[in-house]
Parts: sequence; structure tokens; C-alpha cells
Amino acid sequence: MSFYSGLKRVLVGESLPTSAHAEERLSNAEALAVLSSDALSSVAYATEEILLVLIAAGTAALTWSLPIAVAIIALLAVVILSYRQTIRAYPNGGGSYIVARENLGLYPGLVAGGSLMIDYILTVTVSVSAGTAALTSAVPGLQRYTVELCLVFVFLLTLANLRGVRESGRLFMIPTYTFVVTIFLLIGLGLYQQATGQISQNDTLIEAKESINLFFILRAFSAGCTALTGVEAISDGVLAFKPPEWKNARLTLLYMGVILGFMFLGITYLAHAYHIAPEEGQTVVSLLGRQILGNGPIYYLLQVATLLILLLAANTSFADFPRLCYFLARDGYLPRQLSILGDRLVYSNGIIFLSVCAAILIVIFRGQVNAVIPLYAVGVFTSFTLSQAGMVRRWYQERTSGWQASAAMNGLGAIATLVVLGVIVSTKFKGGAWLVVVAIPLVVGIFLAIHRHYEYVAQRLSIQGIAPRSYIPRLRTQEGTHPAVVVVGQLNRGTLEAIDYARSIADEIVAIHVDIGSTDREKLQQRWQQLGADIPLIILDSPYRSVVSPIVDFVTDFEDRHPNVLSTIIIPAFVTRNWWESILHNQTTFFLKASLRAKKSRVVTTVRYFL
Amino acid sequence: MSFYSGLKRVLVGESLPTSAHAEERLSNAEALAVLSSDALSSVAYATEEILLVLIAAGTAALTWSLPIAVAIIALLAVVILSYRQTIRAYPNGGGSYIVARENLGLYPGLVAGGSLMIDYILTVTVSVSAGTAALTSAVPGLQRYTVELCLVFVFLLTLANLRGVRESGRLFMIPTYTFVVTIFLLIGLGLYQQATGQISQNDTLIEAKESINLFFILRAFSAGCTALTGVEAISDGVLAFKPPEWKNARLTLLYMGVILGFMFLGITYLAHAYHIAPEEGQTVVSLLGRQILGNGPIYYLLQVATLLILLLAANTSFADFPRLCYFLARDGYLPRQLSILGDRLVYSNGIIFLSVCAAILIVIFRGQVNAVIPLYAVGVFTSFTLSQAGMVRRWYQERTSGWQASAAMNGLGAIATLVVLGVIVSTKFKGGAWLVVVAIPLVVGIFLAIHRHYEYVAQRLSIQGIAPRSYIPRLRTQEGTHPAVVVVGQLNRGTLEAIDYARSIADEIVAIHVDIGSTDREKLQQRWQQLGADIPLIILDSPYRSVVSPIVDFVTDFEDRHPNVLSTIIIPAFVTRNWWESILHNQTTFFLKASLRAKKSRVVTTVRYFL
Repeated sequence: MSFYSGLKRVLVGESLPTSAHAEERLSNAEALAVLSSDALSSVAYATEEILLVLIAAGTAALTWSLPIAVAIIALLAVVILSYRQTIRAYPNGGGSYIVARENLGLYPGLVAGGSLMIDYILTVTVSVSAGTAALTSAVPGLQRYTVELCLVFVFLLTLANLRGVRESGRLFMIPTYTFVVTIFLLIGLGLYQQATGQISQNDTLIEAKESINLFFILRAFSAGCTALTGVEAISDGVLAFKPPEWKNARLTLLYMGVILGFMFLGITYLAHAYHIAPEEGQTVVSLLGRQILGNGPIYYLLQVATLLILLLAANTSFADFPRLCYFLARDGYLPRQLSILGDRLVYSNGIIFLSVCAAILIVIFRGQVNAVIPLYAVGVFTSFTLSQAGMVRRWYQERTSGWQASAAMNGLGAIATLVVLGVIVSTKFKGGAWLVVVAIPLVVGIFLAIHRHYEYVAQRLSIQGIAPRSYIPRLRTQEGTHPAVVVVGQLNRGTLEAIDYARSIADEIVAIHVDIGSTDREKLQQRWQQLGADIPLIILDSPYRSVVSPIVDFVTDFEDRHPNVLSTIIIPAFVTRNWWESILHNQTTFFLKASLRAKKSRVVTTVRYFL
Repeated sequence: MSFYSGLKRVLVGESLPTSAHAEERLSNAEALAVLSSDALSSVAYATEEILLVLIAAGTAALTWSLPIAVAIIALLAVVILSYRQTIRAYPNGGGSYIVARENLGLYPGLVAGGSLMIDYILTVTVSVSAGTAALTSAVPGLQRYTVELCLVFVFLLTLANLRGVRESGRLFMIPTYTFVVTIFLLIGLGLYQQATGQISQNDTLIEAKESINLFFILRAFSAGCTALTGVEAISDGVLAFKPPEWKNARLTLLYMGVILGFMFLGITYLAHAYHIAPEEGQTVVSLLGRQILGNGPIYYLLQVATLLILLLAANTSFADFPRLCYFLARDGYLPRQLSILGDRLVYSNGIIFLSVCAAILIVIFRGQVNAVIPLYAVGVFTSFTLSQAGMVRRWYQERTSGWQASAAMNGLGAIATLVVLGVIVSTKFKGGAWLVVVAIPLVVGIFLAIHRHYEYVAQRLSIQGIAPRSYIPRLRTQEGTHPAVVVVGQLNRGTLEAIDYARSIADEIVAIHVDIGSTDREKLQQRWQQLGADIPLIILDSPYRSVVSPIVDFVTDFEDRHPNVLSTIIIPAFVTRNWWESILHNQTTFFLKASLRAKKSRVVTTVRYFL
């Protein structure tokens, strides 16, 4: 067992046979934990993002956070009601790519797929960064290791997913429900303290740098829309529920919406009531926690639960992204390698691809949530819009009973999310959204280029039209000659074996030797006569001391003289016992093979001699 | 023409045919310039190195520089008289490696070779660093780019030598003689000014940190011995002289010794007379120059000439190091690649090897001459001692007329340099000489390991003892069967061609296909029947979804069943039009070949299908 495979076994575990593939069904409570962590965890940063925009207009402007939060919750309600229709129509799970492709056609499907891919990568970046912020808020000493911590978390998630996170349901409930409970505790205690007038307000006034106008408010609204990310997860994973799957999924989606809405509204209200202004190095939730819960164990529990649910949220992408890549690769829009199940029955290549992209973004944006947020949500809302528009089309075409209501619901969702998408793109364009606006068509372009390539290859390789052959077993001698060229450096055992091999496969053999100015030609020919009398040895001149080019020229010429048959070019090579010994020998074989391939020699055979 | 070869042509020039190889003969004046730059240029730093040691004992200790310089000049005289004997005995050029190997045996020869290799590398490092110091002394603003400047100089030297520095003689005279003339001008003017009492002494007193004792004086002496580096160059290059070669060489060596002695003594005396103490950022020669010549054009000429002669000194190593590597590689103590003439008739690999090593040392020591000096001179004096001891042995064995005088001269040289070597190692051991003391046996160990490997390979590959064969041309069918395995992925044109190829070279063919769980076996067998009825298709199971391991297992088994014949393993592969397209296809072929090779399959043939 090599070092690499040993290391891999320790980190990732033993290979699993295909037969070990099985689906786990989740109870509603488990499903909520597994599928909603992305959506629920966004309350850890959504309020803060709104406040960060508003603070530019001074402390007074923070009041605007309340109406903005209400608007976002209204939007959330529309999206959730709309997705409930999707669940009914796609009881086997309807991701945006599939829904958009089936109902709107290829291009909208690819746009949805590309948007989602970008979004999954950003989810990992944002969630891991936000989780790390929760940790560094609690332990400020860790703040200067932000990037390193983020990368460690990404690495751990990658490892866990490469092993395959099978036993998910139960395990995932702990951090999710701890988070929900501590947030509700925070809200409850906060409201109680406010009612009893125990608030110690910190009223440091910050001056306005911007003035409040519609565009400004919409910008804050856009920032808050990150609260909606992850809402579609349940509709993608209907099959994970216990039967009746679609009913359980709809119910869970509703629960999730209600919980998310309450938490988001609660935190935003408290931030307003406690006059919280965003600070460097402390998240808004952490500031609230310190003020309401004090610096005791419950505060630290809140921060740890926040970190954990955010890591779960990132983990959702590790399940969804490789699956999306699988669909795209299966359809020929991504490299085939992404559709292959790895040793542990997971799509290892997709997992690695995702973590590399996320890690790069983390390094670029130094693990700062605020820096990445403008890029986020563009992809989500693009896929929301396409998916729901696809549903409208589907209802209209199928016209099952009560289709009008569903179509209206989805239509409302499509229009609402389209409008919000417009708002997000226009308000955050300069801040970074332009990157995603550029990236989505680029990704779709890559999809199409890959597809064209696969189609070209398939067409060139097709055996369609080749008449069914019925070979009669024939002896090779009846088919005419098979030509071969043997490259001879020194006369040694390796060369002799190569000549013997040539003799066994070919009947027209030429041996060639290149004289770079140091060959005793007479002696060589004389020894050759003793060893290979029936094969001619041709000595090639090389005034420029290159070994490779005279051989390539000769072979090209030789192959031209045998037009309708594959010639075999035989290169003797000896294999050293260790890799480091091989640097002590000329790398001529390597360069020779590369040059012959570049010249389209089709069969270059190395006859190895093991020392 | 590829990008790489285009770039290479611009930088290095067109390939030269072997016939263009010719020797240029140098007049004595030219030879002095070409072969003595290393020795002469050492006056640019030798005095400074002495003063840098002495200053630790305070300004008063600087007086010691005079007797030390006199002692070094005495040593120089001994070495030069000794090398005059070597030139007479080796009129074809006697490098230390050759002299020591011929007369003292293998191990002393290798020690001399290893010492010289290390020394040539250090010569480049020291000379380039000192040259850069001359430049930054004149233009202090460049000081913070010291390392970058050094690396640029090394790069330029590498490039020049890869092109081949043919037109050397005339060109090299300009900087060498400019340097000699300006140094003599400096000394003359300095003495004149001193005589006429125009010295404006700077008498900043520096306090003593160390006390003066014998060891301390010897340490200063060791530092000054760097003045002797490069003295052996003329005896290595006797063949470059016009006839009578050895007489001209001896004469030139004498001239060089006299010039070097005067310059070294002159600078050391002036440094003493002008109370020069070494300063950070200014070389001693630069300090002297500014004081004696003023800040005018002659001062800048001096600095430029110093830079240029130091670059020439480094350039000497670029000629000598690859030649030494050639000798060692030819004898099997270094990788063979170092004995191959490159496109431009120079030993390109040796040149590149040298510049990489020197560049690494420059980066490690930040381009500081003082930091490298303790390592320097150990190699020189080791090879001095061995070479001269070898000469004593030779005189004693040959006993030509007047051998006693020559032997006595060489013996004196050997003893003197051995004593100095002892002094250098003991006084500079802690300061860095230990590195070289460790490196020399290490290098010799590598020489021996390489030699053992080449001998082992030669013995394993030898055809000694294989009886001269006289083959009768035989048809392959008479020799029995040739077995082949064809690996079949999908059924496509590439596969069909591979099967056709197998049919043309073999008469016992098996096709194999790996089912990782996605193959429609019945359909595949059915289509196979239509296409290749005479060849059996075996479908291999792969419960762990690996394509490679079932094939490797099958092939190992197959080869075991055909013990006395080379089986051919045929892998169809299609070649994409661009390199980037190839990442869209499974890299299975690559991994399969690597695994088969690891399992010692000797003939793995790829049949390429060009799209």
C-alpha cells in the first residue's frame, strides 16, 4: 500500500461497495434539521447586513430596519407558498435546474443550474465566514486567525463529506434545535427585559454619511434578502421524507417559514429596541447576546450553536452542489468526472471542486461576510424566478384540477422574486453583484462549450454506419505485413528484448540508431551483425546532436511509406528500482515519445526492462 | 514552432552544428584577461575581509592588516611557483581533479572534484555579491535591491553562457585592464597624496570588543586568503594559449602573481594609511576611491570596472564548472546529462545547475559578501593541497631531469596550503566553514552512489556472455502465439481500431470490459458479436467502481498464464484537438498505464485515435 493510499484510507475511510448505497428516510423534525439549516442560519447575519447599510445614514436611520424586515417576511411568505406548489407537482424532488429545464427549455435550465452552482459556492463561503465571525465574536483573540479558521472549517467539511455523512438526521438535530431554542430564549428574555425597563442602552450617536432615499432603502432591503437563501432546499429533497413524502415536505416547509420569520423579526426588533449598531469584530447577534444574556454560559452556548448551524448550512451545499454537478455532468454540460461515485459512494470530485472554489473566495475576501454578501442572493433569486416561472408554465400545460390557484401562487412568487432580483442587481451592482452578473452567462457558456465538445467526440467516435462485420479467424500472415521500427541506443539486454519483441509482433522490422558524434559506427555494425543479422540497422546522422529529431523524421517518413497500416514504434527502456535513480538517466525516452505523439504517430510502444 | 522553442531561440540563439566546435587561441594579454579575472578581482574584497575581522579588536588593531597582507603575498608566491611546475608537467591543462586522480588515486581525486564544485558555486555567489556591493556603494539608492540585482546578474551570466561566450578574449580585456589601471591609479594617487600630506583622515575611534591573540590574527589571515582564489585557473587552461603553450602560460601566471600582489598590498597599505574602517553599505575600495579620487568620474569608473571584473570572475566559474561536471559525468560520478553538449555547443545542464545553486546561496545569504566568505576558500585550499601533493607524487614517479627542484617547489606549496587549510577550517569553523567540511564528504558520497548505480545498470544490461546469435528469418507464426489483451471501454471507432491493431500483431487476443454498475451487458455482448466475433469479450465485475484494479488483476493473471512471452496490453485512447479538451475526459488511461507499470507489465501499448 502506497503512502498516498494509506493517508487516504485514514482520512476518508475504506472503499464502500456500490451495494452499500441506500436512502435514509427522515422524520419531519429530522428533515427540518437537515434541510433547513441553510435557511434558518441566515438570521445570524441577515439583520446585521441590513443595519450595516442603514448605519451609513446615521444611527437614526436604523429605525428603517423594522419595515424592511416586515417586507422581507412578506416576501418569504410568498416564496414559501409558491414552493409548496412545486412540492406537490414534483414529489420526487424538483430542483430549479430540473424544473426550469423541463418546463422552460434548455437555456433557462442552464441559467438556473449556473446560478445555483455559484450560489452553493457562495453559501459555503458566507456560512463558514459567518460561523467564524460568531466564534471570533465570543473569543476576540482568535480574530487575527479568521482566514485560517475558515479554511480549517472548509477542510473539515470536505473531509466529512468525502467520508460520506450518512448518519445525518439525528446528529444534525442537536445544533439546529439548540440554535432555534437559544435564539427564542434570547428573543423572549430580550422582550421581557425591555418590558420591565431593564435596558441599558448604548447611545453612541453615529453621524450620517449618506442621505435616506428610495434607492438607499432598497439597498438595505437587498442586503436583508439573504435571509431567504436556502428556502428551496426542502423542495429539492422531498424524497428524503417519510411517506406521504410531499405532504410531510409541505408541512415542514411551512414550519420552517414560521420559525425563520419569527427569529428574523425578533432579532431585528431587539436590535432596534436595544439600539444596536454594527461593530467591527462583533456580530449583531453577539452584541445582543452579551447585552441580554450577559457574558455567561448561555451567551457562549448561543455563539457555539450559531457556529455549528452555520457549518451545517455550509454542509447543505456539500450535499447539493455535487448532486447538481452530477445532473449537469450526466447531461454532458460538465466534465464527466463529476458524475462518478467515489470510493465512499459520494461524488468526490464535486465535493473537492466546491471546497476549492469556496476556499479561494475565502482567501480573496479575507473571510469577511460583509465583503461577500453583495455577490450572494443574485444566484438564489435567479433560480427562484426561473423555477417558479417554470411551474406556471407547467400548471398551464397540465391543467390538473385546481391548477389555476397553484399557477397564480407560483406566478406571484415568480413576479415577486423577479422584482427583488432586479432590485438586488441594481442596488448591489457596483458593490460586487456585477461579478455574478458576468459569471452566470460565462458559466452557461462553459456548459455549452463542454456539451459541444462531447457531442463532437461522440459523433467522431460513433460506429453508426459501420456495417456489422463477421470476421473469419485469420492468421496474421495472411493479412500482409506488419511494420515496426526499433529505436536502438546502446546494445544491451533491454535492446535485445525489444528486438525480440519486434520480431514477435512484426515481420518488417527496421532498427535505427542516432549518432550524435560519439558512436563507433564500425564496431556497432559489427556487433549488430552478431546479434540481429536479419534486421537492418540504420545509423542516422545528427549534426545538431539531437537524438529526437532524426528519429521523428525517420518515423514520419517510414509511416508515410506504409500508408494503410499502423506501424509500431518500439522504444526499449529500462526501469530503475527507485524513482530517484531515474534522474540519473537520459530522459530521452520521455521526449522521444512526446515528440512522436505530437507528430501523430499512433502506436508508440515502450518495451520495459526491469533491472 | 512552439512558444517554448521560440522563446529559447530568442534568448539563447539558433542551434549550432557539432562541426562549429573550434578552439580559440589567446595571446598572453588576452589570456591574462580571460583566466585571471577571478584572481585579480579578489582584491576588491580581500582587504575588506581582513579589516572586518580586525575591527572587532578596535581601530588600533587595523595595523595588523599590513603584516597579514605580507604573509598572504608570501603564500601567493609559493602557490604560484608551485603551479608553474604543474603547468610544465601538464601542458594539456591539469585541473586539480585530474592531477589528484591520476597521481593520488580515486578518492583524493573525488575530494578535489567535490571541493572544486563547491568552490565554483561559491565563486559565483561571492563575485556577484561583491560586484553588486561595488555598484551599491556607488549608488546607495540601489542598496535595498541587492538580492534582486545579484539574481539579475546571475541570470545574465547564465544566458550569455548558454548562448556560448565565444568571442571572449578581446572583449574580456577591456574590463580587466580598466580595473587594473584604475586600481594602480588609485594606489599611485593615494601614495602621492600621502607623500604630499594631503590626507584628511577620519579618525572615528571604534572600541575593542575582542582582544588580540594568535587565533584572532589567524582568523584575519584566513579571511584574507580569499585573495588567492582563482590562482589555479591558468594551469587549468594551458591549451587556450598560443604555442609554446606551457611557456606562455607560465609567464602569464607570473605576471598575474605580480599584478595581484602589488594591487593587494597597495590597497591594504592605503586602507591603513587613510585609516579606513569597514562600513556598512560601502566597500573599502569604494571608501578609498571616494577619499582619493573624489566623487568624480574616475571614482565611478573604478566602481564600474570593479563590478565588471567581478562579473568576469563569476563568468570563469561558468566555464570551469560545467567542464569539471563533464569530466565527472564522463567518468560516471555525476548524472550523464551533464556530459551532453547543448544546442549551442556548451554544457547547458552544467551551466543551469551552477546558476541555480548560486542563486539559492545568494537568496539565503541575502547577497552579503561577508556572510559567504567563511564558506569560501575551504574548497580552494583543499584542491590546492591535493593538486600539489599529486604533483609531488608524480615528480617522484617520473623522475624527469630536474625533478627534485620541481618536487620541492610543489611540496612546499602542498605543505603551505595544507597548513593554511588547517588554519582556515579551525578559525572559520563556527562561522560557516563547517558547512563546507560537511558538504565535501557528502558530495563525494553522492559521486560514489551515482557511480555504483551506473555500474549496477551496466552490469545488468550487459550482453557480455550472450552467445552471438545468427537468426534465420522466421515467420512469426512459426514462433508460436503472441498474446494480447485489449481494454474496451465503450464501443467506438477508437476501440475498433485497437482491435484491428491487436489482430495485426497477435494471434491470441482477449478483450476485457469493466462494469462499474452502469453497463448494459446484454446489449454490449450483442453489439460485440456483430463487430468482433472471433475475439472473446470478458466483462469484469467491479463492486467498488474502480476501473483500474479489475484490469490490473486480470492482466497480472493473464501474464502469469503466458510465462515465457511478452504479452501486449492494448489500450485504445483518443487524442483531443487541444490540451484543455483532454480534461473533459476520464484520465483512466493515464492511471491504468501507471498501475500496469507498477505491476511490471512490460509492454503497454496505447493505440491513439486522433479526432
